[in-house]
Order: sequence, then structure tokens, then C-alpha cells
Amino acid sequence: MTVYLVGAGPGDPELLTLLAARLLATADVVVHDALVGDSVLALANPRAELIDVGKRPGRPVPQDNINALLVQIGRRHERVVRLKGGDPFVFGRGGEELLALATAGVAAEVVPGVSSSFAAAALAGVPVTHRGVSASVTVVTGHRQPGEDEPRWRELAAAGGTLVVLMGVARRGHIAQQLIAGGLRSDTPVLAVTSASTEHEQRWIGRLDEMATAEIHSPATLVIGEVVAVAAQVSSRRLVP
Amino acid sequence: MTVYLVGAGPGDPELLTLLAARLLATADVVVHDALVGDSVLALANPRAELIDVGKRPGRPVPQDNINALLVQIGRRHERVVRLKGGDPFVFGRGGEELLALATAGVAAEVVPGVSSSFAAAALAGVPVTHRGVSASVTVVTGHRQPGEDEPRWRELAAAGGTLVVLMGVARRGHIAQQLIAGGLRSDTPVLAVTSASTEHEQRWIGRLDEMATAEIHSPATLVIGEVVAVAAQVSSRRLVP
Repeated sequence: MTVYLVGAGPGDPELLTLLAARLLATADVVVHDALVGDSVLALANPRAELIDVGKRPGRPVPQDNINALLVQIGRRHERVVRLKGGDPFVFGRGGEELLALATAGVAAEVVPGVSSSFAAAALAGVPVTHRGVSASVTVVTGHRQPGEDEPRWRELAAAGGTLVVLMGVARRGHIAQQLIAGGLRSDTPVLAVTSASTEHEQRWIGRLDEMATAEIHSPATLVIGEVVAVAAQVSSRRLVP
Repeated sequence: MTVYLVGAGPGDPELLTLLAARLLATADVVVHDALVGDSVLALANPRAELIDVGKRPGRPVPQDNINALLVQIGRRHERVVRLKGGDPFVFGRGGEELLALATAGVAAEVVPGVSSSFAAAALAGVPVTHRGVSASVTVVTGHRQPGEDEPRWRELAAAGGTLVVLMGVARRGHIAQQLIAGGLRSDTPVLAVTSASTEHEQRWIGRLDEMATAEIHSPATLVIGEVVAVAAQVSSRRLVP
């Protein structure tokens, strides 16, 4: 009786880990987010019950309900897979689910996945770190939750290195303005990737001061920093045939 | 004729992606680092030529030589896999290899992997981000290369959020001192993980001001921040049976 908190990677089913695929193929129940696509769910045990707890706009499933559901299902089934886009512990709220399960005495394991934060850049040929250009990469959420502090954009700008902003499309004007106020050049290159590694993938490349008015569809990964220019020489073909 | 820059993940062969495993199984040549273990290499095409360019202490293979080797091999073989621990673009110098290949006109593709920077924490039950605790995570190298600037430790401390330091064991005293000077509390919890997800995995948990004198074996991932305390309630069993 174990609940596995499993990262599904950025979207392409071939970017699941071998372990994620094995657990999915042998699961009794799969509890997944809206961001997990059909091509990934197709890898699930055909006899498994699939439960969508996707937080769609306007119809959010409260996290407490998801936690309670996982505890309930985890007590009744041998192998439960909680499948999340990207990595379960990088803005996946996997920590909250792990704590809820541990508190209830339900066995839980974490299976790391390929984080969309790095993969969206990599698939566009952008290395999030690069010798002589960036010696650090910060992944930060642009979504401001009630009761949460705003990320320290100015300090992040001062710290240097590449910035990867998840869930930041709606507030990208504010974010750009804060980063420029913190010292980033207004012509700092930016890569925005929507639906990385899927057939719906869209990319935009521009300057930080153009980000506010650019047409960028949510959810997107925003990669901000000089590393974006490193990829300029490199063709940006899509994934492997 | 393509060179695939492939992430092998943190160590456990089951943490390779399906795509990485497929490419490895059908490669003509595999060029790998010392950090890629035998259990991962066992997934390679038995007819593939394996070339170890591991940068072992005292016998480094210069990056320029590796770049030249990849260009040479990439021109002669149908499918070359350049296999790197973790993710090829997170301190993997994959960007330099991609540029060298592109400049030489050799086709190259990037296959993202599970980054050790996040996985080492996750497998110990530590979420690198956690609501109300940390809204960002910065991955930074502790290794200072000739001609490179020192990471801005004090600014990183001021920016808040979780810090993950790779290749930082040798200089952990200096790093701790700089972070405390930048405002981190001396009792900030730290998790150090050596050889994450392998049978040789070792973990140390302590305070930032104890990190300098703790027995931590290199190479290790250092996770610094309050998220480390989140895992205290959770058992930290190893990977899935």
C-alpha cells in the first residue's frame, strides 16, 4: 500500500523515467493533473482507475481535498500513482501531499521527473548554465498566492545568473519591471516556451522590455538571461525522430 | 548522423528517461563521463563502442578535446550518444558541446534528464520549493573555475529561497561563511547527499554553521534552506522496490 508521487516530465511521454513508466503501467489508481496529457496517460495500466484533479481555471480543486483523496485512496489500494507534470517537488505541491500522507501513516515515495523548468530551455537549445555566461539558475514562481510573500525580484536580479519563471505569464509585465529596477538590462534576452516538448509547443524570443506586450500563451516557462543568446547559433529542431 | 546530448539522471538506471534508454540501446558510440555508472552503461547497445572521457581528479580531459572528439565521431557514425550525469545543461557543459557541434555542422539534439540538483533532495523527502517556506530554488556551482567570477553568495542569501550547491564540498566552509555574512541564519538546515539514488548514497543533515566541519564526501549535492526541515516528519526510505 504505497502512494508514489511521480513526475511526468514536461509533456513528451518519452521524457518519463523508466521508473515512472513502470509504476504507471502497474498502478491500481492514477491521480493526475490537467497538465498531464493523454499521450502520457496512455502508458497507464488499462485496468487502472484514472482520476483527474486538474486545477482548471475557474474550477480549482482545493489542495486539501487532493491531500484527503490521496490518503483515502492510499489506504484502499496497493499501488497508487499521483502523477504530476514536470517534477513533483518543483512547484508541484508534492511536499504538501507527502506530508499529508506521512501524517496519516500512508506509505509514500517520491519519483523525481524531468523538470519543465530546465527542459523547456534545453529543448530550445538554451543551456540554463553556461561557462562564462551564467554560473547559477533560479527557478521561481510568478504566481502570487494569497498569504504568500512576493518573490524578491530585485534581489534575484542582483544575484545574477539565469532566471526561470513558472506560472508567470499573467504577471510578466510586473516581473519585467521589477527585474529591470533590480539591475537587469532592458535588452536581456528572454525565451518563452508554451507546452514544451508537445506538438503544441510555441516559442517566443525577445527582450525583457518586450515581454510585457508579447503574445505569450499560458502556461509558459519564461527563461530570462544571457544564456538565451547562446542558443542563437544553434538550430532549434524538435525532439528526436 | 546525429549526436544526442543525453542526461542520464542522478544515478539509478531507472531514472533515465524512456528516450534516453531508447537512444542508448540503439547507439553506435557512447561517450560518457566518469559519473555515469556501470548499471546505466549496461543499458547501452552491446555492439556500441563506449568511450570514457570522465574528468577524474588529476587526469582531466580538457573540454576542448571532448568537443573535438564529439565532432570527429559525430561525422563518422549514425547515432552517437553523449551521456552525462544529471541533466546535460545544468552544469554539464552541454552548451559548449552543442555549440561546438553546431559550429562544425554536425547535427545535435538535447535530451533533458532528471537533474541531480532536484532529485537528491526529492529522494530524501525534501521538496526544493514548498508553499509558505520557499518560493524559489537556485542551483549554483561551488566550484570556482579559472577566469570565472565567484558566485554572488551574499546576494543569493538575500534573494531567499532554497539553495542547491553542486561541486561545493571542497569549499563548503567558505560558502557557509559567505551565506551567513549575507544574512542566512547560522542554524539554517542543510542536507548533503553523496551519490544520490545509488547503493552508495550517503546523507548528512545539520546546520549551516556545522557544514564546514561535517564529514561530507565529494561529489555531493548541498541543499540549504528551511525546506530541509519540512522532511523531518517524513521517513526517508530509498527508491521503489
